[in-house]
Amino acid sequence: MISKNQLKLLRALGQKKQRKAHSLFLVQGEKNVLELFNSDLVVKNVFATADFLSENHASLIEFDCVEASLDDLTKASTLVSNNAAIAVVEIPTFELPEATGLMIALDGVSDPGNLGTIIRVADWYGIKHIVASSDCADPYNPKTISATMGSFGRVHVSQTDLPAYLEQANLPVYGAFLEGESVHKTEFTANGILLMGSESHGIREHAAKYVTDKITIPAFGGAESLNVAMATGIILDNMRRQHS
Amino acid sequence: MISKNQLKLLRALGQKKQRKAHSLFLVQGEKNVLELFNSDLVVKNVFATADFLSENHASLIEFDCVEASLDDLTKASTLVSNNAAIAVVEIPTFELPEATGLMIALDGVSDPGNLGTIIRVADWYGIKHIVASSDCADPYNPKTISATMGSFGRVHVSQTDLPAYLEQANLPVYGAFLEGESVHKTEFTANGILLMGSESHGIREHAAKYVTDKITIPAFGGAESLNVAMATGIILDNMRRQHS
Repeated sequence: MISKNQLKLLRALGQKKQRKAHSLFLVQGEKNVLELFNSDLVVKNVFATADFLSENHASLIEFDCVEASLDDLTKASTLVSNNAAIAVVEIPTFELPEATGLMIALDGVSDPGNLGTIIRVADWYGIKHIVASSDCADPYNPKTISATMGSFGRVHVSQTDLPAYLEQANLPVYGAFLEGESVHKTEFTANGILLMGSESHGIREHAAKYVTDKITIPAFGGAESLNVAMATGIILDNMRRQHS
Repeated sequence: MISKNQLKLLRALGQKKQRKAHSLFLVQGEKNVLELFNSDLVVKNVFATADFLSENHASLIEFDCVEASLDDLTKASTLVSNNAAIAVVEIPTFELPEATGLMIALDGVSDPGNLGTIIRVADWYGIKHIVASSDCADPYNPKTISATMGSFGRVHVSQTDLPAYLEQANLPVYGAFLEGESVHKTEFTANGILLMGSESHGIREHAAKYVTDKITIPAFGGAESLNVAMATGIILDNMRRQHS
Protein backbone atom coordinates (compact mmCIF):
# COMPACT_ATOMS: atom_id res chain seq x y z
CA MET A 1 0.00 0.00 0.00
CA ILE A 2 1.14 3.53 -0.77
CA SER A 3 1.60 5.44 2.49
CA LYS A 4 0.41 9.01 2.95
CA ASN A 5 3.97 10.30 2.87
CA GLN A 6 4.77 8.34 -0.28
CA LEU A 7 1.65 9.65 -1.98
CA LYS A 8 2.66 13.17 -0.99
CA LEU A 9 6.08 12.65 -2.59
CA LEU A 10 4.62 11.17 -5.79
CA ARG A 11 2.29 14.14 -6.12
CA ALA A 12 5.09 16.60 -5.37
CA LEU A 13 7.31 15.14 -8.10
CA GLY A 14 4.81 16.32 -10.70
CA GLN A 15 6.30 19.78 -10.11
CA LYS A 16 9.68 20.89 -11.41
CA LYS A 17 10.60 22.77 -8.23
CA GLN A 18 9.99 19.67 -6.13
CA ARG A 19 11.90 17.42 -8.53
CA LYS A 20 14.85 19.76 -8.18
CA ALA A 21 14.57 19.94 -4.38
CA HIS A 22 14.42 16.13 -3.98
CA SER A 23 16.66 15.39 -6.98
CA LEU A 24 14.12 12.74 -7.93
CA PHE A 25 11.76 12.15 -10.86
CA LEU A 26 8.91 9.84 -11.80
CA VAL A 27 8.92 7.07 -14.36
CA GLN A 28 5.37 5.91 -15.06
CA GLY A 29 3.85 3.11 -17.08
CA GLU A 30 4.94 -0.49 -17.56
CA LYS A 31 7.14 0.02 -20.60
CA ASN A 32 9.04 2.94 -19.13
CA VAL A 33 9.53 1.27 -15.74
CA LEU A 34 10.79 -1.92 -17.42
CA GLU A 35 13.38 0.17 -19.27
CA LEU A 36 14.86 1.19 -15.93
CA PHE A 37 16.16 -2.34 -15.40
CA ASN A 38 18.50 -1.92 -18.39
CA SER A 39 19.68 1.55 -17.45
CA ASP A 40 22.29 2.98 -15.08
CA LEU A 41 19.67 5.07 -13.30
CA VAL A 42 19.29 4.68 -9.54
CA VAL A 43 15.77 3.58 -8.63
CA LYS A 44 14.53 4.55 -5.19
CA ASN A 45 11.10 2.88 -5.15
CA VAL A 46 8.81 0.98 -7.45
CA PHE A 47 5.05 1.18 -6.80
CA ALA A 48 3.24 -1.44 -8.85
CA THR A 49 0.32 -3.83 -9.08
CA ALA A 50 0.68 -7.37 -7.74
CA ASP A 51 0.60 -8.62 -11.34
CA PHE A 52 3.44 -6.36 -12.43
CA LEU A 53 5.52 -7.32 -9.40
CA SER A 54 5.07 -11.05 -9.92
CA GLU A 55 5.61 -10.92 -13.69
CA ASN A 56 8.86 -8.99 -13.25
CA HIS A 57 9.97 -10.60 -10.01
CA ALA A 58 13.51 -11.44 -11.20
CA SER A 59 14.24 -7.95 -12.49
CA LEU A 60 12.76 -6.25 -9.44
CA ILE A 61 14.67 -8.21 -6.82
CA GLU A 62 17.15 -5.43 -6.07
CA PHE A 63 14.53 -2.68 -5.86
CA ASP A 64 12.44 -1.41 -2.98
CA CYS A 65 8.97 -2.38 -4.19
CA VAL A 66 5.56 -1.39 -2.86
CA GLU A 67 2.46 -3.26 -3.96
CA ALA A 68 -0.58 -1.13 -4.72
CA SER A 69 -3.93 -1.47 -6.45
CA LEU A 70 -4.42 -0.09 -9.96
CA ASP A 71 -6.88 2.37 -8.44
CA ASP A 72 -4.35 3.72 -5.95
CA LEU A 73 -1.66 3.89 -8.64
CA THR A 74 -4.02 5.80 -10.91
CA LYS A 75 -4.78 8.24 -8.10
CA ALA A 76 -1.06 8.71 -7.45
CA SER A 77 -0.13 9.08 -11.11
CA THR A 78 0.19 12.38 -12.95
CA LEU A 79 -0.82 10.60 -16.17
CA VAL A 80 -4.26 9.41 -17.22
CA SER A 81 -3.31 5.91 -18.37
CA ASN A 82 -0.66 3.20 -18.08
CA ASN A 83 -0.48 3.15 -14.34
CA ALA A 84 0.48 -0.45 -13.56
CA ALA A 85 3.83 0.82 -12.27
CA ILE A 86 5.40 4.04 -11.03
CA ALA A 87 9.07 4.37 -10.13
CA VAL A 88 10.80 7.10 -8.16
CA VAL A 89 14.24 7.60 -9.66
CA GLU A 90 17.27 9.74 -8.82
CA ILE A 91 18.02 12.51 -11.31
CA PRO A 92 21.46 11.53 -12.64
CA THR A 93 24.35 13.94 -12.58
CA PHE A 94 26.64 14.01 -15.57
CA GLU A 95 29.06 16.45 -17.11
CA LEU A 96 28.03 18.61 -20.02
CA PRO A 97 29.11 16.47 -23.00
CA GLU A 98 31.97 17.52 -25.23
CA ALA A 99 30.81 18.54 -28.69
CA THR A 100 31.63 15.38 -30.62
CA GLY A 101 29.88 12.94 -32.96
CA LEU A 102 26.34 13.65 -34.06
CA MET A 103 24.35 15.69 -31.53
CA ILE A 104 21.11 17.61 -31.22
CA ALA A 105 20.78 21.13 -29.80
CA LEU A 106 17.37 22.57 -28.92
CA ASP A 107 16.54 26.26 -28.61
CA GLY A 108 13.37 27.04 -26.65
CA VAL A 109 11.51 23.77 -27.30
CA SER A 110 9.13 24.20 -24.41
CA ASP A 111 6.56 21.43 -24.92
CA PRO A 112 7.44 18.36 -22.84
CA GLY A 113 5.67 15.99 -25.25
CA ASN A 114 7.75 17.32 -28.14
CA LEU A 115 10.94 17.00 -26.11
CA GLY A 116 10.08 13.39 -25.22
CA THR A 117 9.33 12.55 -28.86
CA ILE A 118 12.66 14.12 -29.88
CA ILE A 119 14.46 11.96 -27.28
CA ARG A 120 12.75 8.87 -28.72
CA VAL A 121 13.66 9.62 -32.33
CA ALA A 122 17.20 10.64 -31.28
CA ASP A 123 17.54 7.20 -29.69
CA TRP A 124 16.28 5.54 -32.91
CA TYR A 125 19.04 7.29 -34.85
CA GLY A 126 21.69 6.51 -32.24
CA ILE A 127 22.15 10.04 -30.86
CA LYS A 128 23.42 9.96 -27.26
CA HIS A 129 23.40 13.64 -26.34
CA ILE A 130 20.94 16.48 -26.57
CA VAL A 131 21.98 19.93 -25.42
CA ALA A 132 18.98 22.12 -24.60
CA SER A 133 18.62 25.82 -23.79
CA SER A 134 17.61 26.54 -20.19
CA ASP A 135 14.08 27.48 -21.27
CA CYS A 136 13.41 24.15 -22.97
CA ALA A 137 10.95 21.75 -21.32
CA ASP A 138 12.27 19.87 -18.30
CA PRO A 139 13.73 16.50 -19.42
CA TYR A 140 12.35 15.03 -16.17
CA ASN A 141 8.79 16.29 -16.62
CA PRO A 142 6.49 13.22 -16.43
CA LYS A 143 5.07 14.06 -19.88
CA THR A 144 8.58 14.15 -21.34
CA ILE A 145 9.50 10.80 -19.77
CA SER A 146 6.25 9.26 -20.93
CA ALA A 147 6.71 10.40 -24.55
CA THR A 148 10.24 8.94 -24.72
CA MET A 149 8.75 5.42 -24.58
CA GLY A 150 11.77 4.20 -22.64
CA SER A 151 14.45 6.12 -24.54
CA PHE A 152 15.06 8.41 -21.53
CA GLY A 153 17.52 5.79 -20.26
CA ARG A 154 19.73 5.95 -23.37
CA VAL A 155 19.81 9.63 -24.31
CA HIS A 156 21.29 12.32 -22.06
CA VAL A 157 19.68 15.74 -22.10
CA SER A 158 21.76 18.62 -20.68
CA GLN A 159 20.15 21.97 -20.05
CA THR A 160 22.71 24.72 -20.34
CA ASP A 161 23.56 28.14 -21.73
CA LEU A 162 23.05 27.09 -25.35
CA PRO A 163 24.76 30.03 -27.11
CA ALA A 164 27.87 29.57 -24.92
CA TYR A 165 27.87 25.86 -25.73
CA LEU A 166 27.57 26.43 -29.46
CA GLU A 167 30.27 29.10 -29.36
CA GLN A 168 32.89 26.68 -28.02
CA ALA A 169 31.74 23.68 -30.10
CA ASN A 170 34.19 22.87 -32.86
CA LEU A 171 31.61 21.21 -35.11
CA PRO A 172 29.40 22.27 -38.01
CA VAL A 173 26.04 23.54 -36.73
CA TYR A 174 23.15 22.61 -39.04
CA GLY A 175 20.27 24.94 -38.22
CA ALA A 176 16.74 24.07 -39.37
CA PHE A 177 15.01 27.06 -40.95
CA LEU A 178 11.99 27.39 -43.22
CA GLU A 179 14.42 28.70 -45.82
CA GLY A 180 17.75 26.99 -46.26
CA GLU A 181 19.40 24.35 -48.43
CA SER A 182 17.19 21.30 -49.04
CA VAL A 183 18.21 18.40 -46.80
CA HIS A 184 17.83 16.25 -49.93
CA LYS A 185 20.81 18.09 -51.40
CA THR A 186 22.92 18.94 -48.34
CA GLU A 187 26.20 17.08 -47.95
CA PHE A 188 26.30 16.44 -44.22
CA THR A 189 29.57 15.85 -42.40
CA ALA A 190 29.69 12.69 -40.27
CA ASN A 191 29.89 14.74 -37.07
CA GLY A 192 27.86 17.81 -36.36
CA ILE A 193 25.17 19.49 -34.32
CA LEU A 194 21.57 19.60 -35.54
CA LEU A 195 20.03 22.77 -34.07
CA MET A 196 16.23 22.96 -33.85
CA GLY A 197 14.14 25.92 -32.66
CA SER A 198 10.63 26.04 -31.30
CA GLU A 199 7.57 25.96 -33.56
CA SER A 200 6.52 29.46 -32.55
CA HIS A 201 9.87 31.28 -32.56
CA GLY A 202 12.21 29.15 -34.68
CA ILE A 203 15.91 29.40 -33.84
CA ARG A 204 16.44 32.67 -31.98
CA GLU A 205 19.22 35.07 -32.95
CA HIS A 206 21.36 34.25 -29.87
CA ALA A 207 21.77 30.70 -31.23
CA ALA A 208 21.27 31.37 -34.95
CA LYS A 209 24.54 33.27 -35.15
CA TYR A 210 26.49 30.03 -34.58
CA VAL A 211 24.77 28.20 -37.43
CA THR A 212 27.26 27.20 -40.14
CA ASP A 213 24.70 25.61 -42.51
CA LYS A 214 21.05 26.63 -42.89
CA ILE A 215 18.98 23.64 -43.91
CA THR A 216 15.32 23.02 -44.68
CA ILE A 217 12.95 20.14 -45.34
CA PRO A 218 11.54 20.62 -48.84
CA ALA A 219 7.76 21.10 -48.91
CA PHE A 220 5.54 19.70 -51.64
CA GLY A 221 2.09 20.73 -50.40
CA GLY A 222 0.17 23.34 -48.45
CA ALA A 223 1.25 22.88 -44.81
CA GLU A 224 3.14 25.88 -43.47
CA SER A 225 5.28 24.02 -41.02
CA LEU A 226 6.02 20.67 -39.40
CA ASN A 227 5.96 19.78 -35.74
CA VAL A 228 9.49 20.25 -34.31
CA ALA A 229 9.81 16.59 -33.31
CA MET A 230 8.69 15.45 -36.76
CA ALA A 231 11.17 17.82 -38.41
CA THR A 232 13.97 16.55 -36.15
CA GLY A 233 13.24 12.95 -37.15
CA ILE A 234 13.13 13.71 -40.87
CA ILE A 235 16.42 15.62 -40.76
CA LEU A 236 18.16 12.91 -38.68
CA ASP A 237 17.07 10.38 -41.30
CA ASN A 238 18.66 12.54 -43.99
CA MET A 239 21.89 12.87 -41.98
CA ARG A 240 22.15 9.16 -41.16
CA ARG A 241 21.52 7.97 -44.71
CA GLN A 242 24.84 9.60 -45.64
CA HIS A 243 26.81 8.35 -42.63
CA SER A 244 25.46 5.06 -41.37
CA MET B 1 -23.33 35.67 -26.76
CA ILE B 2 -23.54 31.92 -27.11
CA SER B 3 -27.15 30.81 -26.55
CA LYS B 4 -28.04 27.77 -24.45
CA ASN B 5 -28.99 25.80 -27.54
CA GLN B 6 -25.77 26.74 -29.31
CA LEU B 7 -23.75 25.71 -26.27
CA LYS B 8 -25.60 22.42 -26.21
CA LEU B 9 -24.72 21.82 -29.86
CA LEU B 10 -21.05 22.72 -29.35
CA ARG B 11 -20.84 20.30 -26.43
CA ALA B 12 -22.63 17.57 -28.38
CA LEU B 13 -20.22 17.84 -31.31
CA GLY B 14 -17.44 16.58 -29.04
CA GLN B 15 -19.01 13.13 -29.52
CA LYS B 16 -18.72 11.08 -32.68
CA LYS B 17 -22.33 9.89 -32.59
CA GLN B 18 -23.59 13.49 -32.42
CA ARG B 19 -21.24 14.64 -35.19
CA LYS B 20 -22.69 11.91 -37.38
CA ALA B 21 -26.30 12.72 -36.45
CA HIS B 22 -25.86 16.45 -37.18
CA SER B 23 -23.32 15.95 -39.99
CA LEU B 24 -21.34 18.76 -38.38
CA PHE B 25 -17.92 19.06 -36.76
CA LEU B 26 -15.95 21.61 -34.75
CA VAL B 27 -12.94 23.61 -35.85
CA GLN B 28 -11.28 25.26 -32.87
CA GLY B 29 -8.43 27.72 -32.44
CA GLU B 30 -7.49 30.80 -34.43
CA LYS B 31 -5.15 29.10 -36.90
CA ASN B 32 -7.56 26.31 -37.76
CA VAL B 33 -10.56 28.64 -38.10
CA LEU B 34 -8.58 30.99 -40.35
CA GLU B 35 -7.79 28.02 -42.62
CA LEU B 36 -11.51 27.59 -43.23
CA PHE B 37 -11.58 30.80 -45.26
CA ASN B 38 -9.31 29.17 -47.86
CA SER B 39 -11.16 25.89 -48.00
CA ASP B 40 -14.28 24.59 -49.75
CA LEU B 41 -15.85 23.56 -46.45
CA VAL B 42 -19.28 24.94 -45.57
CA VAL B 43 -19.16 26.94 -42.34
CA LYS B 44 -22.39 27.11 -40.35
CA ASN B 45 -21.35 29.42 -37.50
CA VAL B 46 -18.28 31.12 -36.13
CA PHE B 47 -18.13 31.86 -32.40
CA ALA B 48 -15.26 34.20 -31.64
CA THR B 49 -13.92 36.99 -29.49
CA ALA B 50 -14.58 40.60 -30.50
CA ASP B 51 -10.84 40.92 -31.30
CA PHE B 52 -10.88 37.94 -33.63
CA LEU B 53 -14.02 39.17 -35.38
CA SER B 54 -12.68 42.65 -35.95
CA GLU B 55 -9.22 41.48 -37.05
CA ASN B 56 -10.73 39.12 -39.61
CA HIS B 57 -13.73 41.21 -40.55
CA ALA B 58 -13.19 40.98 -44.31
CA SER B 59 -12.82 37.20 -44.34
CA LEU B 60 -15.77 36.66 -42.03
CA ILE B 61 -18.27 38.77 -43.90
CA GLU B 62 -20.08 35.82 -45.47
CA PHE B 63 -20.29 33.81 -42.26
CA ASP B 64 -22.85 33.74 -39.49
CA CYS B 65 -20.75 35.07 -36.60
CA VAL B 66 -21.50 35.16 -32.87
CA GLU B 67 -19.39 37.29 -30.56
CA ALA B 68 -18.46 35.69 -27.25
CA SER B 69 -16.02 36.27 -24.41
CA LEU B 70 -12.85 34.20 -24.16
CA ASP B 71 -14.29 32.74 -20.96
CA ASP B 72 -17.47 31.56 -22.65
CA LEU B 73 -15.51 30.20 -25.60
CA THR B 74 -13.22 28.29 -23.25
CA LYS B 75 -16.24 26.83 -21.47
CA ALA B 76 -17.75 25.79 -24.80
CA SER B 77 -14.52 24.36 -26.18
CA THR B 78 -13.50 20.71 -26.00
CA LEU B 79 -9.85 21.80 -25.98
CA VAL B 80 -7.86 23.35 -23.16
CA SER B 81 -6.28 26.22 -25.10
CA ASN B 82 -6.53 28.32 -28.27
CA ASN B 83 -10.14 29.26 -27.86
CA ALA B 84 -10.38 32.66 -29.53
CA ALA B 85 -12.58 31.10 -32.22
CA ILE B 86 -14.73 28.02 -32.71
CA ALA B 87 -16.46 27.18 -35.98
CA VAL B 88 -19.26 24.71 -36.63
CA VAL B 89 -18.68 23.19 -40.05
CA GLU B 90 -20.56 20.73 -42.28
CA ILE B 91 -18.92 17.35 -42.72
CA PRO B 92 -18.18 17.25 -46.45
CA THR B 93 -19.35 14.38 -48.60
CA PHE B 94 -16.99 13.13 -51.24
CA GLU B 95 -16.52 9.93 -53.20
CA LEU B 96 -13.96 7.37 -52.16
CA PRO B 97 -10.92 8.47 -54.21
CA GLU B 98 -9.59 6.34 -57.05
CA ALA B 99 -6.25 4.77 -56.27
CA THR B 100 -3.96 7.13 -58.12
CA GLY B 101 -0.86 9.22 -57.44
CA LEU B 102 0.82 8.99 -54.06
CA MET B 103 -1.59 8.08 -51.25
CA ILE B 104 -1.57 6.98 -47.62
CA ALA B 105 -3.58 4.07 -46.21
CA LEU B 106 -3.98 3.61 -42.45
CA ASP B 107 -4.83 0.35 -40.70
CA GLY B 108 -6.19 0.74 -37.16
CA VAL B 109 -4.51 4.06 -36.31
CA SER B 110 -6.85 4.86 -33.44
CA ASP B 111 -5.24 7.86 -31.75
CA PRO B 112 -6.80 11.13 -33.03
CA GLY B 113 -3.63 13.12 -32.30
CA ASN B 114 -1.59 10.73 -34.44
CA LEU B 115 -4.15 10.90 -37.24
CA GLY B 116 -4.08 14.70 -37.14
CA THR B 117 -0.27 14.76 -37.24
CA ILE B 118 -0.33 12.34 -40.20
CA ILE B 119 -2.77 14.66 -42.03
CA ARG B 120 -0.40 17.59 -41.38
CA VAL B 121 2.72 15.80 -42.66
CA ALA B 122 0.74 14.37 -45.62
CA ASP B 123 -0.16 17.95 -46.54
CA TRP B 124 3.52 18.99 -46.25
CA TYR B 125 4.43 16.31 -48.79
CA GLY B 126 1.51 17.14 -51.08
CA ILE B 127 -0.61 14.04 -50.44
CA LYS B 128 -4.30 14.74 -51.08
CA HIS B 129 -5.94 11.46 -50.01
CA ILE B 130 -5.75 9.24 -46.98
CA VAL B 131 -7.78 6.03 -46.93
CA ALA B 132 -8.35 4.78 -43.40
CA SER B 133 -9.80 1.54 -42.00
CA SER B 134 -13.17 1.94 -40.30
CA ASP B 135 -11.57 1.49 -36.86
CA CYS B 136 -9.12 4.38 -37.31
CA ALA B 137 -9.68 7.56 -35.29
CA ASP B 138 -12.48 9.83 -36.52
CA PRO B 139 -11.04 12.43 -38.93
CA TYR B 140 -13.55 14.92 -37.45
CA ASN B 141 -12.60 14.34 -33.81
CA PRO B 142 -11.67 17.76 -32.34
CA LYS B 143 -8.24 16.39 -31.34
CA THR B 144 -7.62 15.24 -34.91
CA ILE B 145 -8.63 18.61 -36.36
CA SER B 146 -6.51 20.45 -33.81
CA ALA B 147 -3.39 18.38 -34.56
CA THR B 148 -3.69 19.00 -38.32
CA MET B 149 -2.80 22.67 -37.75
CA GLY B 150 -5.05 23.69 -40.61
CA SER B 151 -4.20 20.87 -43.01
CA PHE B 152 -7.68 19.33 -42.54
CA GLY B 153 -8.88 21.62 -45.33
CA ARG B 154 -6.42 20.26 -47.90
CA VAL B 155 -6.28 16.51 -47.23
CA HIS B 156 -9.30 14.22 -47.61
CA VAL B 157 -9.60 11.30 -45.24
CA SER B 158 -12.00 8.50 -46.28
CA GLN B 159 -12.94 5.81 -43.82
CA THR B 160 -13.76 2.60 -45.63
CA ASP B 161 -13.31 -1.17 -45.82
CA LEU B 162 -9.51 -0.96 -46.18
CA PRO B 163 -8.80 -4.52 -47.39
CA ALA B 164 -11.47 -4.18 -50.10
CA TYR B 165 -9.93 -0.85 -51.14
CA LEU B 166 -6.42 -2.26 -51.32
CA GLU B 167 -7.64 -5.31 -53.25
CA GLN B 168 -8.99 -3.23 -56.12
CA ALA B 169 -6.17 -0.65 -56.11
CA ASN B 170 -3.90 -1.06 -59.09
CA LEU B 171 -0.84 0.50 -57.42
CA PRO B 172 2.19 -0.78 -55.51
CA VAL B 173 1.44 -0.98 -51.77
CA TYR B 174 4.44 -0.09 -49.61
CA GLY B 175 3.81 -1.52 -46.16
CA ALA B 176 5.86 -0.26 -43.17
CA PHE B 177 7.11 -3.13 -41.04
CA LEU B 178 9.87 -3.38 -38.45
CA GLU B 179 11.58 -5.75 -40.87
CA GLY B 180 11.61 -4.92 -44.54
CA GLU B 181 13.85 -3.29 -47.11
CA SER B 182 15.53 -0.11 -45.85
CA VAL B 183 13.77 2.99 -47.16
CA HIS B 184 17.27 4.33 -47.84
CA LYS B 185 17.66 1.62 -50.49
CA THR B 186 14.12 1.15 -51.80
CA GLU B 187 13.43 2.35 -55.34
CA PHE B 188 9.98 3.84 -54.98
CA THR B 189 7.66 4.19 -57.95
CA ALA B 190 6.22 7.69 -58.51
CA ASN B 191 2.71 6.50 -57.68
CA GLY B 192 1.84 4.17 -54.86
CA ILE B 193 0.13 3.62 -51.54
CA LEU B 194 2.04 3.95 -48.28
CA LEU B 195 0.34 1.62 -45.79
CA MET B 196 0.91 2.25 -42.07
CA GLY B 197 -0.36 0.16 -39.14
CA SER B 198 -0.96 1.10 -35.53
CA GLU B 199 1.86 1.23 -32.99
CA SER B 200 0.41 -1.62 -30.97
CA HIS B 201 -0.66 -4.01 -33.73
CA GLY B 202 1.29 -3.01 -36.82
CA ILE B 203 -0.35 -3.78 -40.16
CA ARG B 204 -2.90 -6.54 -39.57
CA GLU B 205 -3.05 -9.60 -41.81
CA HIS B 206 -6.28 -8.50 -43.54
CA ALA B 207 -4.37 -5.56 -45.02
CA ALA B 208 -0.83 -7.01 -44.98
CA LYS B 209 -1.72 -9.50 -47.69
CA TYR B 210 -2.04 -6.70 -50.24
CA VAL B 211 1.44 -5.31 -49.51
CA THR B 212 3.68 -5.55 -52.58
CA ASP B 213 6.82 -4.09 -50.92
CA LYS B 214 7.76 -4.41 -47.24
CA ILE B 215 9.78 -1.41 -46.17
CA THR B 216 11.43 -0.29 -42.94
CA ILE B 217 13.14 2.78 -41.50
CA PRO B 218 16.69 1.74 -40.60
CA ALA B 219 17.48 2.04 -36.87
CA PHE B 220 20.85 3.13 -35.54
CA GLY B 221 20.21 3.15 -31.78
CA GLY B 222 18.21 1.56 -28.99
CA ALA B 223 14.61 2.67 -29.52
CA GLU B 224 12.32 -0.23 -30.40
CA SER B 225 9.88 1.72 -32.50
CA LEU B 226 8.86 5.12 -33.76
CA ASN B 227 5.55 6.89 -33.35
CA VAL B 228 3.35 6.09 -36.36
CA ALA B 229 3.04 9.74 -37.41
CA MET B 230 6.83 10.19 -37.18
CA ALA B 231 7.39 7.04 -39.25
CA THR B 232 4.89 8.24 -41.86
CA GLY B 233 6.73 11.55 -42.20
CA ILE B 234 10.15 9.93 -42.53
CA ILE B 235 8.95 7.47 -45.18
CA LEU B 236 7.14 10.19 -47.17
CA ASP B 237 10.39 12.18 -47.18
CA ASN B 238 12.19 9.15 -48.60
CA MET B 239 9.50 8.70 -51.28
CA ARG B 240 9.41 12.35 -52.31
CA ARG B 241 13.18 12.72 -52.58
CA GLN B 242 13.01 10.27 -55.54
CA HIS B 243 9.97 11.79 -57.22
CA SER B 244 9.71 15.48 -56.52
